[in-house]
Amino acid sequence: MNISARVAKLAPELVEIRRDLHAHAESGWTEFRTATKVVERLTELGYEVKFGPEVHNREHMAGLPSEAELERHLERAIAQGANPDIARKMAGGYTGVVGILRCGEGPTIGLRFDMDALDITESDDPDHRPNQEGFASKNKGAMHACGHDGHTAIGLGVATVLAEMKDQLRGTIKLFFQPAEEGVRGARAMVEAGVCDDVDFLLGAHLGFQAREVGTIITGGAGFLATSKMDAIFTGVPSHAGAAPEAGRNALLASATAALNLHAIARHSGGASRINVGVLQAGSGRNVTPANAIMKLETRGETTDIDAYMKEQAERIIKAAAAMYDVQVELRPMGSAAGGTSDPELAEIIGQAAGETPGVTKILPTGDLGGSEDYAWMMDRVQKRGGKAAYMMIGSKIAAPHHDSRFDFDERSLPIGVEVMVRTVLRLTQS
Amino acid sequence: MNISARVAKLAPELVEIRRDLHAHAESGWTEFRTATKVVERLTELGYEVKFGPEVHNREHMAGLPSEAELERHLERAIAQGANPDIARKMAGGYTGVVGILRCGEGPTIGLRFDMDALDITESDDPDHRPNQEGFASKNKGAMHACGHDGHTAIGLGVATVLAEMKDQLRGTIKLFFQPAEEGVRGARAMVEAGVCDDVDFLLGAHLGFQAREVGTIITGGAGFLATSKMDAIFTGVPSHAGAAPEAGRNALLASATAALNLHAIARHSGGASRINVGVLQAGSGRNVTPANAIMKLETRGETTDIDAYMKEQAERIIKAAAAMYDVQVELRPMGSAAGGTSDPELAEIIGQAAGETPGVTKILPTGDLGGSEDYAWMMDRVQKRGGKAAYMMIGSKIAAPHHDSRFDFDERSLPIGVEVMVRTVLRLTQS
Amino acid sequence: MNISARVAKLAPELVEIRRDLHAHAESGWTEFRTATKVVERLTELGYEVKFGPEVHNREHMAGLPSEAELERHLERAIAQGANPDIARKMAGGYTGVVGILRCGEGPTIGLRFDMDALDITESDDPDHRPNQEGFASKNKGAMHACGHDGHTAIGLGVATVLAEMKDQLRGTIKLFFQPAEEGVRGARAMVEAGVCDDVDFLLGAHLGFQAREVGTIITGGAGFLATSKMDAIFTGVPSHAGAAPEAGRNALLASATAALNLHAIARHSGGASRINVGVLQAGSGRNVTPANAIMKLETRGETTDIDAYMKEQAERIIKAAAAMYDVQVELRPMGSAAGGTSDPELAEIIGQAAGETPGVTKILPTGDLGGSEDYAWMMDRVQKRGGKAAYMMIGSKIAAPHHDSRFDFDERSLPIGVEVMVRTVLRLTQS
Amino acid sequence: MNISARVAKLAPELVEIRRDLHAHAESGWTEFRTATKVVERLTELGYEVKFGPEVHNREHMAGLPSEAELERHLERAIAQGANPDIARKMAGGYTGVVGILRCGEGPTIGLRFDMDALDITESDDPDHRPNQEGFASKNKGAMHACGHDGHTAIGLGVATVLAEMKDQLRGTIKLFFQPAEEGVRGARAMVEAGVCDDVDFLLGAHLGFQAREVGTIITGGAGFLATSKMDAIFTGVPSHAGAAPEAGRNALLASATAALNLHAIARHSGGASRINVGVLQAGSGRNVTPANAIMKLETRGETTDIDAYMKEQAERIIKAAAAMYDVQVELRPMGSAAGGTSDPELAEIIGQAAGETPGVTKILPTGDLGGSEDYAWMMDRVQKRGGKAAYMMIGSKIAAPHHDSRFDFDERSLPIGVEVMVRTVLRLTQS
Repeated sequence: MNISARVAKLAPELVEIRRDLHAHAESGWTEFRTATKVVERLTELGYEVKFGPEVHNREHMAGLPSEAELERHLERAIAQGANPDIARKMAGGYTGVVGILRCGEGPTIGLRFDMDALDITESDDPDHRPNQEGFASKNKGAMHACGHDGHTAIGLGVATVLAEMKDQLRGTIKLFFQPAEEGVRGARAMVEAGVCDDVDFLLGAHLGFQAREVGTIITGGAGFLATSKMDAIFTGVPSHAGAAPEAGRNALLASATAALNLHAIARHSGGASRINVGVLQAGSGRNVTPANAIMKLETRGETTDIDAYMKEQAERIIKAAAAMYDVQVELRPMGSAAGGTSDPELAEIIGQAAGETPGVTKILPTGDLGGSEDYAWMMDRVQKRGGKAAYMMIGSKIAAPHHDSRFDFDERSLPIGVEVMVRTVLRLTQS
Repeated sequence: MNISARVAKLAPELVEIRRDLHAHAESGWTEFRTATKVVERLTELGYEVKFGPEVHNREHMAGLPSEAELERHLERAIAQGANPDIARKMAGGYTGVVGILRCGEGPTIGLRFDMDALDITESDDPDHRPNQEGFASKNKGAMHACGHDGHTAIGLGVATVLAEMKDQLRGTIKLFFQPAEEGVRGARAMVEAGVCDDVDFLLGAHLGFQAREVGTIITGGAGFLATSKMDAIFTGVPSHAGAAPEAGRNALLASATAALNLHAIARHSGGASRINVGVLQAGSGRNVTPANAIMKLETRGETTDIDAYMKEQAERIIKAAAAMYDVQVELRPMGSAAGGTSDPELAEIIGQAAGETPGVTKILPTGDLGGSEDYAWMMDRVQKRGGKAAYMMIGSKIAAPHHDSRFDFDERSLPIGVEVMVRTVLRLTQS
Repeated sequence: MNISARVAKLAPELVEIRRDLHAHAESGWTEFRTATKVVERLTELGYEVKFGPEVHNREHMAGLPSEAELERHLERAIAQGANPDIARKMAGGYTGVVGILRCGEGPTIGLRFDMDALDITESDDPDHRPNQEGFASKNKGAMHACGHDGHTAIGLGVATVLAEMKDQLRGTIKLFFQPAEEGVRGARAMVEAGVCDDVDFLLGAHLGFQAREVGTIITGGAGFLATSKMDAIFTGVPSHAGAAPEAGRNALLASATAALNLHAIARHSGGASRINVGVLQAGSGRNVTPANAIMKLETRGETTDIDAYMKEQAERIIKAAAAMYDVQVELRPMGSAAGGTSDPELAEIIGQAAGETPGVTKILPTGDLGGSEDYAWMMDRVQKRGGKAAYMMIGSKIAAPHHDSRFDFDERSLPIGVEVMVRTVLRLTQS
Repeated sequence: MNISARVAKLAPELVEIRRDLHAHAESGWTEFRTATKVVERLTELGYEVKFGPEVHNREHMAGLPSEAELERHLERAIAQGANPDIARKMAGGYTGVVGILRCGEGPTIGLRFDMDALDITESDDPDHRPNQEGFASKNKGAMHACGHDGHTAIGLGVATVLAEMKDQLRGTIKLFFQPAEEGVRGARAMVEAGVCDDVDFLLGAHLGFQAREVGTIITGGAGFLATSKMDAIFTGVPSHAGAAPEAGRNALLASATAALNLHAIARHSGGASRINVGVLQAGSGRNVTPANAIMKLETRGETTDIDAYMKEQAERIIKAAAAMYDVQVELRPMGSAAGGTSDPELAEIIGQAAGETPGVTKILPTGDLGGSEDYAWMMDRVQKRGGKAAYMMIGSKIAAPHHDSRFDFDERSLPIGVEVMVRTVLRLTQS
């Protein structure tokens, strides 16, 4: 059976997988059920499967929920059908999975799929298709509003087809199922555990974005903004605002002056930069000098250096703002991504693969991400070691913008994604 | 039976009432159970009782909870034993009660008692006496941590004794049981309904404060700071902080620059002023230009004029901060109190009454409130009409500071408070 | 001849002295001509005269002009008739003078007179009396707009009468002619040189203020605000604002954020406080990241402790603002005054003396300064050692507010001031 | 004589002209002497010369000095040898000159040269070549530190050669000698007077910048940042900072909060933006609530639209900051430039012309200006009408950065600049 026929036959199963994952959406570092399903499937398919602490560098697991939260989600996953033995090996948030298919001499080809949902409660609008067709998220406060359910489904589809074609392949296939892409928290932990250190060609993909129609493939995603996420927690001293204002140490004003001055960081002549204090929460009562504040912020840069400049300025400003009001401040890193861009040579090969794929109707060489993706950490590692990396966008009509509680995508994109990736692997392994 | 003997006999009942109210603590505008108990008792004692909309000016009922909240608390009150017929007449937050005892020709004497609890969950420390003796608040998030349960008990005690002595009295006695003193939200609504417009002498009282021992009476509370409470709700426009920062309208920065500049309002040469932005909450996500912010603030002034200066500055600054970031802002008044001080002539009479009261061991002519009390609106109205008003502090040893979740007071203060007030009324009515 | 007659005879000379000083106005630390005139006159009258470094503590000579400025003013003074030998002994700004009249056993009585003009150019309005009568300041940028010319004239008048009455006196008279009162820079340097360390009674005076009519005497000036003056000099790094904004270190923004946050220092429950950033100058060109800024500020407090609180906060804020923008900052103390109030016992004696003075028509026991005077350092030293100090206000109708370029006072106040002071000394020395 | 030989012969005269202009440096809108020299020379060469009000649109003459300043500089120019009759026709700052050479049918070719010096006092360092060779600026506070003296010399050189070659030319040559390029104040006034409305090809040039060696020519200057310059003048109300802080309206704090919030304007996803508050001067005395402030600022954008975004935000912020402190503010436009880039077709032709020029050793197709030039207004007008425009950089080794008081350039660049421009005109006119 040829590839297109094989993928076509697989299509209903891709939808089934996607909908199961959608219904059991799990946010970053809590993808216990999702990841156990991945482990089980890859094992069945004959992959060598690595997971748990060995494929994560603990130090770089950014923005982890509390132990109690992790435990609670682990139990929920088991209650929702996760294999308890596998799931418990992921306790503590170790939800990344690596599947390896060894096919003899040849290049090592990595493919990355992200698995996490967002901290959003899915819309209860009866017109929202997941409600109509009964696969809306059962987990309040967790929703696949960015299509990672589809990414994981594609990943398992690719795994299936490649396993079946093993005798036509050379080299090594490595599938990276990554946790916590939202908030750019997960990739770096896997990179720093060394999972990509032997990769010659790296592929990643996203549904939608600039590719807005089913059948469109963008082969070379570009313009990844480097980014750093951090929380600043200010701690002052309360006092009665009427009776003893001078006895307080005002964490609210420290954070307010920080926010203002953060946004005033000088622009960089080397390229685009960004700063956003997205959340600020301070104080406990109207008549009390506010003794606590938390600020959630992020910097970005067109290059990793520009982001580093922004982050360095931001840290200095926050510390000085705390000193100004004689309050304490703790800075917590909450995620980061490198900058980067696809290698055009690899994008070219993806384009050729797309050209052979029946459902593809439009192939664009490049598309601007205009945002951040922690896939860039993997690209960066592979490119620094001399490999090639690219990021494709798989066209899909979406029902609402990414991250909206009414987000949905056209599932006809799933087999197209599988086939373009499989054909790209074939070209790389056969070249 | 002489007064001291009568009050002594009443003491156990005062404790009982206080503990019942403490166990069923109700926050501002939700004192449905408390107020129905007051209505019932006053009616039994033969008072003419007014309550519901007629004793409140709707426009000045500041900081009302939502309709749903009010309804929920009303049902709780009924479930906890409030007379449903009476309670339902208070629906919407009309929990103030006026009791009138007409004794012929003579002056009108008002006495004010506040009934509300704080939005605090009572400590579960087993050493906390209300826990030891089983009268801790059953209502989570509501606690009598400022002694108003005691004030209401004193009020009912005074009502009892005066009713029994009716034939020794001249003039008219008006008892004001006021809701929502916390946040200085309730007094003005009753004042603007005209309840004090015929009062010649006005008495108010608080347990504790500068009077720290059972037996101490401060006869002339002074230094009430005028205050204005307000919320500012900013509404901007969200945008993706990486992809389109210029498309957002940043409510967080509007509120931060407002907070900073509010605290920079010029000091006033005419006397003390205060400003506090006690709470600031802004933004929804790290990577979204924040489109909403809420700021809870208050101003204070040594005089009503200085507070008016502060408030006027504050309003202008908040509006300009919103305009600076092209965001909308709504200002909501959340309570206010006038400034003021006790009339020394009336304080003098209270001192004489205290001198006749057996348990009183120390009488101080004046004590600084160093804060705000919406009783000042009543004082202000009475004093402006040519009447005399005073505020006494009834000494009590307290277990923890006012507004602390472990607050408690010494119940031996209750009969002393009743007796000093009754004796003062007698002196006023007999003079 | 009795005192009143003697003073009346002296009146024309007082006017002559005052007008000569007015025409040759000298700003703080440059009172070379004024001070040499004082030295000469006191010497003629038989006083033991001390001046130059011995009566100044160099470390506390705040806000000194540059060496070049001092030299330029010294030469101007000589050109305008100052005795060169005396003036040169004051080189470097040592313009304070102490005159001592020893009259045997008895108390030491100090009297303080300030000599400096303001950095203001006198109005050229032809209706301004100094222009009409030809005694306007010949020195551009220096004007007696606060009446210190009158104070010095009174001081020399007092010196004259007391010298003539020496045989009626007991104890020791010390006359302090002080430089640089404006900016509260001079008194402390003399205090720290020990000049008041033996003083039992200290008198100071000011024309005008609350005493607005000739004939009014306020005997007990009160409400001196403690104050600290400082300059903050920020130094950053310039860069081209278009080509390399990230390379600059912005001293302007550091100073702007300092200014804002300084004004936001929490009010003090212990009494009045003040903060003012009066001057801010930053930057060199529109398209250059500003690399320099200077900020002139002052704090005040109702007590010396409250001012110390304000100053400490201010220093921390300024340093943190510099750190926030990675710029350097230097803080230079530019003057200070203590808080304080007159001793009522001494004010009482002044009142008795005023009662004996023919021109006096109204005697008020106390008047609020509502500002700062570095005389407070002298009061503070004397009071701390157990002596008594007071500050009187000598009534005068003024033509324009103090510090206005059209300021002038009614010279009929001069002999009244002399007589009240002389009579007060007599009462103190004879008691 | 061929072109190269003619230019070589002209070289000493170019140096002479340049040094005469350098020695008599004149800042923007005061180039009275420079412009009269240009008028005289063009007239001699047979050009039709237009100057005075007819070649300026008054409304767009940004950042004009005061009438008194203009008059003073006009008189200085005459004193330094300007033809009084011509100069007086420029009174009021009308110092732009247009020279027209009509050569029959054919395209209209414009060349622009800027004439103004900077408000800088030239270094008195004896090693500075203008000092060594005696041509340093005689005008304190005015210095050719950006090479416009060289530009004007090149312009007159081009005028000379083209006039001599008139019979080899077709079409119309228009030479624009522009005032007030510094601060981007002059070009728009000439553009809005319509001087470029018939231009088909427009050439402009600058010495140095990216072209750092004699012999280098950059043919297509790119990356002109659009810019808007403005002054904000705040007017508040003074008060005594100790006695009546509440009576003041603080212009310093209004400007400080404006400065901070201006720098916090959100970045633009469409390209680079800039903001700089370069100068801030506020307040009059340490103890006076500051009643005045002036802020000099500029915005920039990679495109004219982005600059318009920045300017609109800036204006709103400044007005809101004034409203926040209840002070008045006046916004004065002080200059502007469009964004833009050279047409590559025209740059190509310049490259060919450079290739024929003996002294040229390196030709670069493009170089980033990384700043603003009001020449962009002329480019914009010509390009919008369908013409082509380019900006070249004429290589020169410079002694110190542009705008430094020790700036100087290598005069061997002058004949090269003349020859490349002449040869470009020839190619355009002959094509």
